[in-house]
Amino acid sequence: MIKVTISNMNKELEIDKINYSLLDILNEGGIEIESICGSKGKCGKCKVIVKNPESVNEITLEEKKSLSEEEIKKGFRLSCLVNLNNNTIIEIPDSSLQKQLRILCEGRSNKILIDPIIKSELIKVKKPLLGNEKSIVDLINEINKEIISVDYPTLKELSNKIEYGLDIKVVRYGNEIIGISEIEKNIYGAAIDIGTTTVVIYLFDLEKGKLVDIESVLNPQVRYGEDVVSRITFSMKNGVEVTNKVIVDEINLMINRLCNRNNISNKSIYEITVVGNTAMHHIFLNINPKTLSFSPFTPILSKSINLKSRELGININPSGNIHVLPIVSGFVGADTIGVLIATEMYKNPEISLAVDIGTNGELVLGNKDKMVSCSCAAGPALEGGHLKFGMRASTGAIESLYIEEDTFNTFYKTINNGKPKGICGSGIIDIVSEMLRVGLLDPSGKIRAHHNERIRKDPLNGQKEFVIEWGDNTEIKKDIVITASDIREIQLAKGAIMTGINILLEKSNITIAQIENLYLAGAFGNFIDIKNAIRIGLLPNIPLDKIISVGNAAGEGAKISLLSRERRMEEDLINKKIGYIELAAEKNFNGEFVMSLNFPKFD
Amino acid sequence: MIKVTISNMNKELEIDKINYSLLDILNEGGIEIESICGSKGKCGKCKVIVKNPESVNEITLEEKKSLSEEEIKKGFRLSCLVNLNNNTIIEIPDSSLQKQLRILCEGRSNKILIDPIIKSELIKVKKPLLGNEKSIVDLINEINKEIISVDYPTLKELSNKIEYGLDIKVVRYGNEIIGISEIEKNIYGAAIDIGTTTVVIYLFDLEKGKLVDIESVLNPQVRYGEDVVSRITFSMKNGVEVTNKVIVDEINLMINRLCNRNNISNKSIYEITVVGNTAMHHIFLNINPKTLSFSPFTPILSKSINLKSRELGININPSGNIHVLPIVSGFVGADTIGVLIATEMYKNPEISLAVDIGTNGELVLGNKDKMVSCSCAAGPALEGGHLKFGMRASTGAIESLYIEEDTFNTFYKTINNGKPKGICGSGIIDIVSEMLRVGLLDPSGKIRAHHNERIRKDPLNGQKEFVIEWGDNTEIKKDIVITASDIREIQLAKGAIMTGINILLEKSNITIAQIENLYLAGAFGNFIDIKNAIRIGLLPNIPLDKIISVGNAAGEGAKISLLSRERRMEEDLINKKIGYIELAAEKNFNGEFVMSLNFPKFD
Repeated sequence: MIKVTISNMNKELEIDKINYSLLDILNEGGIEIESICGSKGKCGKCKVIVKNPESVNEITLEEKKSLSEEEIKKGFRLSCLVNLNNNTIIEIPDSSLQKQLRILCEGRSNKILIDPIIKSELIKVKKPLLGNEKSIVDLINEINKEIISVDYPTLKELSNKIEYGLDIKVVRYGNEIIGISEIEKNIYGAAIDIGTTTVVIYLFDLEKGKLVDIESVLNPQVRYGEDVVSRITFSMKNGVEVTNKVIVDEINLMINRLCNRNNISNKSIYEITVVGNTAMHHIFLNINPKTLSFSPFTPILSKSINLKSRELGININPSGNIHVLPIVSGFVGADTIGVLIATEMYKNPEISLAVDIGTNGELVLGNKDKMVSCSCAAGPALEGGHLKFGMRASTGAIESLYIEEDTFNTFYKTINNGKPKGICGSGIIDIVSEMLRVGLLDPSGKIRAHHNERIRKDPLNGQKEFVIEWGDNTEIKKDIVITASDIREIQLAKGAIMTGINILLEKSNITIAQIENLYLAGAFGNFIDIKNAIRIGLLPNIPLDKIISVGNAAGEGAKISLLSRERRMEEDLINKKIGYIELAAEKNFNGEFVMSLNFPKFD
Repeated sequence: MIKVTISNMNKELEIDKINYSLLDILNEGGIEIESICGSKGKCGKCKVIVKNPESVNEITLEEKKSLSEEEIKKGFRLSCLVNLNNNTIIEIPDSSLQKQLRILCEGRSNKILIDPIIKSELIKVKKPLLGNEKSIVDLINEINKEIISVDYPTLKELSNKIEYGLDIKVVRYGNEIIGISEIEKNIYGAAIDIGTTTVVIYLFDLEKGKLVDIESVLNPQVRYGEDVVSRITFSMKNGVEVTNKVIVDEINLMINRLCNRNNISNKSIYEITVVGNTAMHHIFLNINPKTLSFSPFTPILSKSINLKSRELGININPSGNIHVLPIVSGFVGADTIGVLIATEMYKNPEISLAVDIGTNGELVLGNKDKMVSCSCAAGPALEGGHLKFGMRASTGAIESLYIEEDTFNTFYKTINNGKPKGICGSGIIDIVSEMLRVGLLDPSGKIRAHHNERIRKDPLNGQKEFVIEWGDNTEIKKDIVITASDIREIQLAKGAIMTGINILLEKSNITIAQIENLYLAGAFGNFIDIKNAIRIGLLPNIPLDKIISVGNAAGEGAKISLLSRERRMEEDLINKKIGYIELAAEKNFNGEFVMSLNFPKFD
């Protein structure tokens, strides 16, 4: 029996079959590791760090080809080529875990202290003596000096429920009583991430500080347009009330489902924290987004706002607080503030860069002293949009890929291992990167001529294309290809992001080398192969260990705001500290952008 | 031609008929002076002060009997016995004017500075430059640093109405924008006095600081009981929602009438200030008054409260503020705080006593350093309740009376000069006082035997009674009498008030002589003959010029709160400064009360 200790996961596996590869052992043990080349040591996805190299076989030639010198020095191995001789201690980098296993960040540095702004406490009002001129509210204030006021509907509730000498369980929002709970019941809160595409609600037990359940749906506003601009236009034409009602109704349905599933009452939810981009923010608040629709794209409100749920028609306790995180500008929203809250980059002395890639890419560069942000119009290509075989990240989407050097044969993985239907964002980055690596693309983005049946011209428009999979093997019975204009779309997208990064760096007088942390936020950041993203020039070339995928950091920010009174207080300080650069207004924007279109050259 | 200058009314009359009495001259000139004895110099109601005595006839014997030495020294005369020889300057004491002419107090010392907490101002938001990260709310804050937030529904309104470069007229409640008004329209506010019996709304133009109109109705809650105890009981049994709805609906109707009459929109009313006793306060706020129903009669809330009108269903601008003045205790309400605001006694170094007589009498004694209050259960006798021929102050009620010494014939005035139907509060005080003066009553309250047909026994119960008017001369065709038990009721009522005054004085270590101002508040205080009130021992025996009738001072307080930001800020300070004494809990209460039942002896 040999033991494998995974030091960064608090996990141990015991095995007797020592002739298995480490990759097989881990997969059998339930730790699903990425791998797409069939354990040939080619795709380089199944990396682990072996802490005691003497307990395993020596590093192979294949591995030396695939790993960088630095990685080898640090003990990196490809687990498909590792055989164990003895008890082994390893560490598994987050990037080697299969997507669904990747852990979402909970603030960079540490776990947060659970200390929600919404609290409950037992209060017992003793019967006052005759002649005591204190009111019930005064008497409660005497018991706890922190309690200063009572929200109006709760004042009524208090007047009905008060009995001298009996405990009542009051729910506080800061210094205000906002509810009276049954003594034996817990109080709840929810964090909502309103994405342009997806809406996610995280339900928390605020007394235990524990996640209870998650509910996630497609944003029903999608029927009014896929992107924020079409939502804004629709809201201006038809009244923001229409788009607002659709999202509020959906959130109420989601809350009902969460409550039913967990057998709690809507009334026991006392707070909701909300993040979303600026358009989602305005529409959720039922504010006309017209000033977002034309230059200078000024939002109506940028500070955080607290409203009673009854004002917005959200079906939780009517005195419950709706806390909407602040926004930065018309194009850098509360979701970005959420990312900052989650990464804590606004508190650290080191320089950090946060990159949240979607249809718009939001970037923030800086540290505790100063931060600048911008928004890059990347377009939908990096999410699979506008590409001939691009698709959403769903079953059958090619999500990662490896190309054999000489044959140009492809090895790939699809989501849920479905028969391939198309290519999603992370797959596209892998394809372009691999095409560059094996010499199928030149740095200008041209598909190179090769005597290979996978490289051909579209007979209709004469455009070059590369065949990823032949029609016989696909779900759609068509050859899945990537075309020259697909490549162009990707160049425009990654060029937009890189231009944003470069301008932020220039404006801040910071060099790439000074970036200590690059936080990659959003589902996209979570699923891409970072090395490949660097290879195509979507991300700057900085050491991999400085790049941290922080998953849905926007949602994480909403959760932290719900659970930590202290961190919430920091939101509006961030909002004050952060500057915004409108890229289009920068005079070197066009030059930078053209420069960024080429793919970087690597040795 | 002779000129009469009324120095305290800015008025001059020119007359040629110099053989008329000054009383006739004044009445003919539209200044209606009290008088009930038919110009015989007997009732002593028509007093004026003659500033240049050399211009009139010498003081008569009758006047010397009726006026005190001090009054004579100050130049007081009975106008029915004054004849003019030359141009005359006089001053007419408030108490000599007929009720409908009496001027309601506007704060003791001076006019208030019109500076409402609700203000409007023009704001022009210039189109920001591209890259300016400020929001519209931030830009408004840059224009006026005082503006910090926008009430939620107004945020929506702002998002619809904002146009770069155009003036918008914002309405502010302190640092918050609560509305956007049409530029050419004024903004309005209202002060409401919710009495147990009467509800009065004063509508003000807040930009001009001017009273626009008044609306007054019977409190529709009267159907649930005449006094506060029955309202509380009803609210507890049937839900405060019932009594609340009745008053809110009525207020909305009144506001609609005021708006229609003055051609303004409900939406242009941005604030309402509210006073009322503690029961009215709780019911208006839709708060269960159950803790007011049993000892120690603790209110739910005593500090002032500000609510959005939409929370209470009051039909003014939905972002409009409802400001309810603070209360002191279960029996000393916001109406009393209103009296203090109006009299400013909480700011003055001199000792003042405020007396507000109704079914309950509320008393406040003190000065800027310290104030104590109490509530006396006077019962309804002083308002005509529980008396054989007692009635409300309406047409046909005997409101003032004079008894001829030897004949015991009565001279009286009824409201609107109707045929007599009964006796209202001020009439009752006159009757008892006159009976004492002419020897019909002894100090213990016994009706003395006299050979006079007006003094007789009720054949049914053998009770003594005094006939005020014979049935032939009355509307009701019955002899109007005052009975021995009526006298007893009045003794209990005035004894309750005087006990309260004595206990406040004792507790505060203050003597009657130290009282510099006695403020008599409420309709009652406005209509009674103060000298007679002193004679029966309802008020302490202090110089008449220290007693000031302040009319509806509670309503006045609500008006001042509406019009003066500075004075409003003082309300909760009063609330902090004022103590409350529960009379029933005082160990010398019973002794004091029994002592107070007798009528005082005067020489």
